[in-house]
Amino acid sequence: MPLLHLSTWPEVEAYLNTSKGMIIPIGSTEQHGPMGLIGTDALCAEAIAKGVGEATHALVAPTISVGMALHHTAFPGTISLRPSTLILVIRDYLVSLVRAGFQRFFFINGHGGNIATVKAAFAETYAVLADLQVPDADQVRCELANWFMCSSVMQLARELYGDREGSHATPSEVAVTQFLYPEAIKRVPLNPEVNTGHAIYGATDFRRRYPDGRMGADSSLASPEHGQQFYEQAVQELSDRYRQFLQAD
Amino acid sequence: MPLLHLSTWPEVEAYLNTSKGMIIPIGSTEQHGPMGLIGTDALCAEAIAKGVGEATHALVAPTISVGMALHHTAFPGTISLRPSTLILVIRDYLVSLVRAGFQRFFFINGHGGNIATVKAAFAETYAVLADLQVPDADQVRCELANWFMCSSVMQLARELYGDREGSHATPSEVAVTQFLYPEAIKRVPLNPEVNTGHAIYGATDFRRRYPDGRMGADSSLASPEHGQQFYEQAVQELSDRYRQFLQAD
Amino acid sequence: MPLLHLSTWPEVEAYLNTSKGMIIPIGSTEQHGPMGLIGTDALCAEAIAKGVGEATHALVAPTISVGMALHHTAFPGTISLRPSTLILVIRDYLVSLVRAGFQRFFFINGHGGNIATVKAAFAETYAVLADLQVPDADQVRCELANWFMCSSVMQLARELYGDREGSHATPSEVAVTQFLYPEAIKRVPLNPEVNTGHAIYGATDFRRRYPDGRMGADSSLASPEHGQQFYEQAVQELSDRYRQFLQAD
Amino acid sequence: MPLLHLSTWPEVEAYLNTSKGMIIPIGSTEQHGPMGLIGTDALCAEAIAKGVGEATHALVAPTISVGMALHHTAFPGTISLRPSTLILVIRDYLVSLVRAGFQRFFFINGHGGNIATVKAAFAETYAVLADLQVPDADQVRCELANWFMCSSVMQLARELYGDREGSHATPSEVAVTQFLYPEAIKRVPLNPEVNTGHAIYGATDFRRRYPDGRMGADSSLASPEHGQQFYEQAVQELSDRYRQFLQAD
Amino acid sequence: MPLLHLSTWPEVEAYLNTSKGMIIPIGSTEQHGPMGLIGTDALCAEAIAKGVGEATHALVAPTISVGMALHHTAFPGTISLRPSTLILVIRDYLVSLVRAGFQRFFFINGHGGNIATVKAAFAETYAVLADLQVPDADQVRCELANWFMCSSVMQLARELYGDREGSHATPSEVAVTQFLYPEAIKRVPLNPEVNTGHAIYGATDFRRRYPDGRMGADSSLASPEHGQQFYEQAVQELSDRYRQFLQAD
Amino acid sequence: MPLLHLSTWPEVEAYLNTSKGMIIPIGSTEQHGPMGLIGTDALCAEAIAKGVGEATHALVAPTISVGMALHHTAFPGTISLRPSTLILVIRDYLVSLVRAGFQRFFFINGHGGNIATVKAAFAETYAVLADLQVPDADQVRCELANWFMCSSVMQLARELYGDREGSHATPSEVAVTQFLYPEAIKRVPLNPEVNTGHAIYGATDFRRRYPDGRMGADSSLASPEHGQQFYEQAVQELSDRYRQFLQAD
Repeated sequence: MPLLHLSTWPEVEAYLNTSKGMIIPIGSTEQHGPMGLIGTDALCAEAIAKGVGEATHALVAPTISVGMALHHTAFPGTISLRPSTLILVIRDYLVSLVRAGFQRFFFINGHGGNIATVKAAFAETYAVLADLQVPDADQVRCELANWFMCSSVMQLARELYGDREGSHATPSEVAVTQFLYPEAIKRVPLNPEVNTGHAIYGATDFRRRYPDGRMGADSSLASPEHGQQFYEQAVQELSDRYRQFLQAD
Repeated sequence: MPLLHLSTWPEVEAYLNTSKGMIIPIGSTEQHGPMGLIGTDALCAEAIAKGVGEATHALVAPTISVGMALHHTAFPGTISLRPSTLILVIRDYLVSLVRAGFQRFFFINGHGGNIATVKAAFAETYAVLADLQVPDADQVRCELANWFMCSSVMQLARELYGDREGSHATPSEVAVTQFLYPEAIKRVPLNPEVNTGHAIYGATDFRRRYPDGRMGADSSLASPEHGQQFYEQAVQELSDRYRQFLQAD
Repeated sequence: MPLLHLSTWPEVEAYLNTSKGMIIPIGSTEQHGPMGLIGTDALCAEAIAKGVGEATHALVAPTISVGMALHHTAFPGTISLRPSTLILVIRDYLVSLVRAGFQRFFFINGHGGNIATVKAAFAETYAVLADLQVPDADQVRCELANWFMCSSVMQLARELYGDREGSHATPSEVAVTQFLYPEAIKRVPLNPEVNTGHAIYGATDFRRRYPDGRMGADSSLASPEHGQQFYEQAVQELSDRYRQFLQAD
Repeated sequence: MPLLHLSTWPEVEAYLNTSKGMIIPIGSTEQHGPMGLIGTDALCAEAIAKGVGEATHALVAPTISVGMALHHTAFPGTISLRPSTLILVIRDYLVSLVRAGFQRFFFINGHGGNIATVKAAFAETYAVLADLQVPDADQVRCELANWFMCSSVMQLARELYGDREGSHATPSEVAVTQFLYPEAIKRVPLNPEVNTGHAIYGATDFRRRYPDGRMGADSSLASPEHGQQFYEQAVQELSDRYRQFLQAD
Repeated sequence: MPLLHLSTWPEVEAYLNTSKGMIIPIGSTEQHGPMGLIGTDALCAEAIAKGVGEATHALVAPTISVGMALHHTAFPGTISLRPSTLILVIRDYLVSLVRAGFQRFFFINGHGGNIATVKAAFAETYAVLADLQVPDADQVRCELANWFMCSSVMQLARELYGDREGSHATPSEVAVTQFLYPEAIKRVPLNPEVNTGHAIYGATDFRRRYPDGRMGADSSLASPEHGQQFYEQAVQELSDRYRQFLQAD
Repeated sequence: MPLLHLSTWPEVEAYLNTSKGMIIPIGSTEQHGPMGLIGTDALCAEAIAKGVGEATHALVAPTISVGMALHHTAFPGTISLRPSTLILVIRDYLVSLVRAGFQRFFFINGHGGNIATVKAAFAETYAVLADLQVPDADQVRCELANWFMCSSVMQLARELYGDREGSHATPSEVAVTQFLYPEAIKRVPLNPEVNTGHAIYGATDFRRRYPDGRMGADSSLASPEHGQQFYEQAVQELSDRYRQFLQAD
């Protein structure tokens, strides 16, 4: 029973007698260049979270599919929350769940742009839980686990793609979606020239610097087979990390 | 290409040349009694939205899986946004999408508790779009389509279940999830006595009145076959309605 | 002593020993076509609330005169709160009153556009009261009673006006204001052609569809005598409903 | 036609051709000691505003009946907005009205506790109007006129009551309500000892210092005849001030 | 040890055994005419607060350097918080400090434009502290002390400058900064004609009325020697007032 | 003229003709163990920012002295903003400054706990500036420069302290404050055992894990001479980085 959505409340009640942990996948809905899927970050986070859930018998929450992607909003199809909104969303999720007895929240994240806001949300939420005097508020712990920053994943990406991995619409994340959704593999020619190395500011500036949306990445290197490897590495490494998170003093 | 998540931004750009419409499924993550799935409202909305998307060639956004379910939060596993948060979420979705050129938003909703807040969010968002002077802000239209209130669906539920349909954890919605996720069909005995008819106030009061979470519903009447019928009726009726929505003057 | 505004705090203290109930009229300040008063919704709700207060010995709060009327703001004289603001206003009212010992809030509403936001506000407030651990927070109940949707009122409107009742600047609501404020009866020619049946989106769109502000209504059918009938029906029906609300288990 | 609520939108449109001014009464709903009415501040502001409206042919908005009275909330019957809420309310009022063409807002205020928040709201609103690029935003001016601080009123209070005027539940404001609502004159014995001179902090502290709610005031000195005098002085002085406000460069 | 910033937490813990008081300087970062420093209000408040801290052995918090200066934002270099933001800032400061045991907050303010918002923030914060059930919330008291409104300061300004003191970029505040920062004395010719007497509305309007930023003030009359006098008067008067504030019943 | 606070608005106007850049120091007011100053993070950021301002002729804003330190609030003397508040503060700063013509904001930060929230604030602000259609909004760039993460600083800390540098109340930051404020050097015995390596969650948890407030740091290794070295390294490295920031395409 790894999926909250496919569980009943008495099952959750029983689960809470065995574990206080929950896995929450968080992604983004944003452009990923000419061949990367708009759902890439959510799809990867969701699949890996389910894998980790199965491996560790942990309950997996529904995916937060729309994250902080304001800098991508000059490309059609991107949807973004404001940071201030995402903080409230995470606060609401956690207040609901902590009141029910959950205490360990392991966010599996598929999008670099979420990191700052999610960390800010954790800090805000700890304070809110204390303010509201929710029982055992001081036992609550949140961890942010970015699958694409797993050491095994990064090493594999280096081996397979070297510096053509880039940092957005990367072949590694595209590969995972090809593994997960082979029916949605896109075949489009990519400009071999791709910008890289610019800092990220606002949406207009981003599109000016990265006209097709990719940041230094050669998405065309991706393959479903690579995707399976990335997926398996990430699931294994994050499963270990989740177990440690639960057991930590 | 009905799914935004499986599309690329150039595909969305091309789509916008043919249609300004988007379907947004919205559900809830909340207790549905001893045998209903916690994800019922999101799973139904999502599946029906995809069905409508296929039938009408409309783009379908990722599902808003967590809605306004504060009155269910005394049961573990429920996650709810505050109404004030959900208003901001919908505002952020629509501001992103309207700036990209979308103008017709068809929300397929699986949860009665969302209705008030979503309507409030539409009003708030129209004003925000006008405030921000987003181009063509006055062309934006949002429609809320509750699949469970389709006349064909309600008639079928009456025929199949009479007044044992109830109003929460209904056999009709349970049936749809059984059709969609046969691996997650729960077999548990239900108390034949089930409360009904109380107004909904806060979470503690709700659980006091509806101890196992059901409101007047005999969820055990559900079957996957019924679920398929409901699904097909809803897809057909809402596909017609979506087409009219797009064509309306 | 039905009016909070004409009471002293020791009188309120004494009242609380006999009843936990309060009636809160809520209206709107918005255009009502060429002959309907801008205050129509507030004036009707206020007068009917006072009538119910007298009939039931209930305390009546000051009227919330400005509600959610964003879609009318393209006509001069309309004042609207944002839904997000109105939620905060209702939250503040109720937190003040619940801390003082009130537990049953009967909102008598004169404006359809308020319904969604007021319901959202109720949900938000129940959660806030629980968060703040206000004593007896779980005993608090709010009910929204729309006078214009009373069955006796709707039946009378059908009898008197048929489908010329329409849905905004209706002869029934105009009649009530004529009964209440005969000095402010307006005599202006109305275009016999009036639009009807369009969904409501933003303010600019609304004015485009309903150029003089009326929605399918022939306000000219109103008379003070009709108004008195509507007023009396509404007071009687809502008085009964308020008594049931107080006595409900 | 001084009352917005008794006007139609075409009348407002016509009014705007002659004046950009609007009078907005603002009061409070709060304890006023054992014999002062809970609505005192709203009732006085409303009546005086109507008087000024008649004298100057100015349009008068519906009264903001609930203001910033947090320090009175330990007495039952008090309703208060948070300062942060009241700022949003005033912002929403003014954004609606400025978009329609109004530019001069004359707030007639009945409650000292509103002053700080209302001034903060003016500052916030000027910035919001500029942010939203509302046409002629830089022409908008708000003035806060506290009727109880009119020089003529203060002089009369000194003459009639000396230092028994006090600063809350004052005989002058009680007198005005007696003039306006003779049917609601309360006859209760007052403790001749009444505290005075303490600074105002939170609600619990306030009630501790001022056990019956009065601040240094002998409300029993009030009479309807005095009330009429205060009313007439205030109307005259504020009518002059409103005219100057409109004509100011 | 008057400065919080130069203290350690064990020192603060020890201090709390002797006093619950804290001094919080608050200023503004805003234009002060052609020769007044942009930091004038913050610099004066900070220095005087330190002086009071030394004289009374009170702990002095870091200066809130940016306040409510929206009406000055049409001049470059001005930074302003919205009133709604400043309310949250003060709320956050006080919630942190009250939880640690502080109960008496003496704000030494250098900017008239802060007064309304700071007072609103006090009211909001008392309610928040009560909401959160912070221990001893009802013992918390905040006082706003405007150094420029000290009677000794105002008298000295009258003696030295008469009506050329004005009300913004005054020679008295400029003098204090000259005393504190002699290296930053500006020598620029001032237009002897300076506007005065206009009410303050929005930023554009302010600059139109006060083209060089001064309000009726002849800043050129300032001297470092005057500044020392003002500084010493303010420190002495506010030290007395702080002691009374601490000792008040 | 590196300090905004010691400048006049005409000087700022002239500066804007030569540069669009501003340096904004941001620190924190939080416990730094038994011998570290509560103001450490603000004092270091402020001094280094002034140094960079002098070296590069850049204007330096007043220090944001209170940042995101919620996890330190179980120690007395700590003051923290909520992340949601700090986002608004930074938004307000930047909206003020961008409207005046500034476009390059270089935040010199002294506190690791600020990083996530400040980055979130940048994202939020870019979107707000675009929403408000502030001229040249798309030219605005913000950079976050953490002085303690300068490579030269980290290398020096490694050389001087090895792994006794730790991560909070580090000898390097204490040393800088000793250099800046020799009068405030604290001599207290430190427990040689100090915890390290725990993740950071809420405030109560933090104090439980780090009872004297230090995280793995031997603050006693600090000396004013070291502090001068750190200061000079940081100023040099950040001055170079600021120049590059201004010149970047």
